[in-house]
Amino acid sequence: MAKSTALPTILITNDDGITAPGIRNLVEAVKGLGKIIVVAPDKPQSAMGHAITIGQPLRMNKIDLFEGIEAWQTSGTPVDCVKLAVDKILHRKPDLCLSGINHGANHSINVIYSGTMSAAMEASIESIPSIGFSLLNYNYEADFGPAKHYVTKIVSSLLLKKMDKHMLLNVNIPSVPVELIKGIKICRQAYAKYEEDFKERKDPQGKKYYWLTGEFVNMDKGKDTDVWALKNNYVSVVPIQFDLTNYQLKQTLEKNWKIK
Amino acid sequence: MAKSTALPTILITNDDGITAPGIRNLVEAVKGLGKIIVVAPDKPQSAMGHAITIGQPLRMNKIDLFEGIEAWQTSGTPVDCVKLAVDKILHRKPDLCLSGINHGANHSINVIYSGTMSAAMEASIESIPSIGFSLLNYNYEADFGPAKHYVTKIVSSLLLKKMDKHMLLNVNIPSVPVELIKGIKICRQAYAKYEEDFKERKDPQGKKYYWLTGEFVNMDKGKDTDVWALKNNYVSVVPIQFDLTNYQLKQTLEKNWKIK
Repeated sequence: MAKSTALPTILITNDDGITAPGIRNLVEAVKGLGKIIVVAPDKPQSAMGHAITIGQPLRMNKIDLFEGIEAWQTSGTPVDCVKLAVDKILHRKPDLCLSGINHGANHSINVIYSGTMSAAMEASIESIPSIGFSLLNYNYEADFGPAKHYVTKIVSSLLLKKMDKHMLLNVNIPSVPVELIKGIKICRQAYAKYEEDFKERKDPQGKKYYWLTGEFVNMDKGKDTDVWALKNNYVSVVPIQFDLTNYQLKQTLEKNWKIK
Repeated sequence: MAKSTALPTILITNDDGITAPGIRNLVEAVKGLGKIIVVAPDKPQSAMGHAITIGQPLRMNKIDLFEGIEAWQTSGTPVDCVKLAVDKILHRKPDLCLSGINHGANHSINVIYSGTMSAAMEASIESIPSIGFSLLNYNYEADFGPAKHYVTKIVSSLLLKKMDKHMLLNVNIPSVPVELIKGIKICRQAYAKYEEDFKERKDPQGKKYYWLTGEFVNMDKGKDTDVWALKNNYVSVVPIQFDLTNYQLKQTLEKNWKIK
């Protein structure tokens, strides 16, 4: 991927917003590895899924936030950021797209809701190899040291290889001191879900409204899942695809579908 | 699925908003087939992907819009609607969830961006069999007759069977007179993408802003895809899954991954 004659161009984005500590740590982790360009939302965009902005126009502004690195903030979603970066800023595809480091887990079913991973998926659809990174810690003051260590390790190693143009990795890092991390595990996405519980409140007029809360429940007993790996202090790497076809059900339906 | 002693409960939602003609046509297509309940966004939520609302509270109001049918509008996304319906309105899982009928195609890669399909996917994660319907016509005045015909046909037939609890179907209907539709085809998701082209404008202060536009490009020459089926006047049915693991790449990485 990385041509020997030039440094690879690495596009960096996230969903927590351009001022979040996570993206700063991601930039620092890879700044020696290529020509870095940051294009990220100007405000938090967590849980935006694969949203794009079609009903209103987008703004973008150059911002001097990372020393010696070109950076842009946009009014759009993480997916918008990738599209804008390719079409309006770089005017070509970068060699690699990195998203994160997310403040909080994006393992198991969270990949579906995650703005971090949707940005990475958008890049993958556009034939740009891509990785989303998340740290299992929601705190603004979280220690990103161990995460940075693994980001540098993974990115520098992958840049030496020929990556598939649709390569898309979901990397989650446990929030423990680096000496407790046992290594990296290639995993599958665990089947887990949220048991919803909307909290009811009343406004000053007595009208009800609801806050979404939910308890994460892992329904998957497998030892080859990302949830298992993280619980056992491994960095989890789940390869992800954007072809959502359920081929097994497709086969069953082809045999049994009687509706003409 | 449908117990012989009671009518099945069918939850209906969409992403074009509760007043869109598409959801009215969906309700009409299935109202004889079960106990219908509608929970849908109070405004259009297209291209919201799998977004959920976590930064602000949700409102919901009962609304008398469909004769003899309980209906609620919410301030949330399509995914929020499914969560609210199960937790706060039905207080149990419905037997089937239907989403749509979307005004416009949700074939191929559109499944990733689609609010219609994300609502259906949320239901499937919650172990509710689910179907998203879309008509290949963006017009508000589109003729939903043929779509209704196929919705009734598909839903009535599936209700007679034991559906897998995670069954999730992406159904797209060509926008042609019903006599031109050749039948139903089980398909895989085509690999297609949008070639982005942001249109630049200037505001009265001379500051630039951008509108997202894009040309749909089908990169997939297969004759087993949804795009092929629709082009040839078939109703396309793509079974969808929420496990995004790329098992092929997982196998390759397990063999070749040297990063510890």
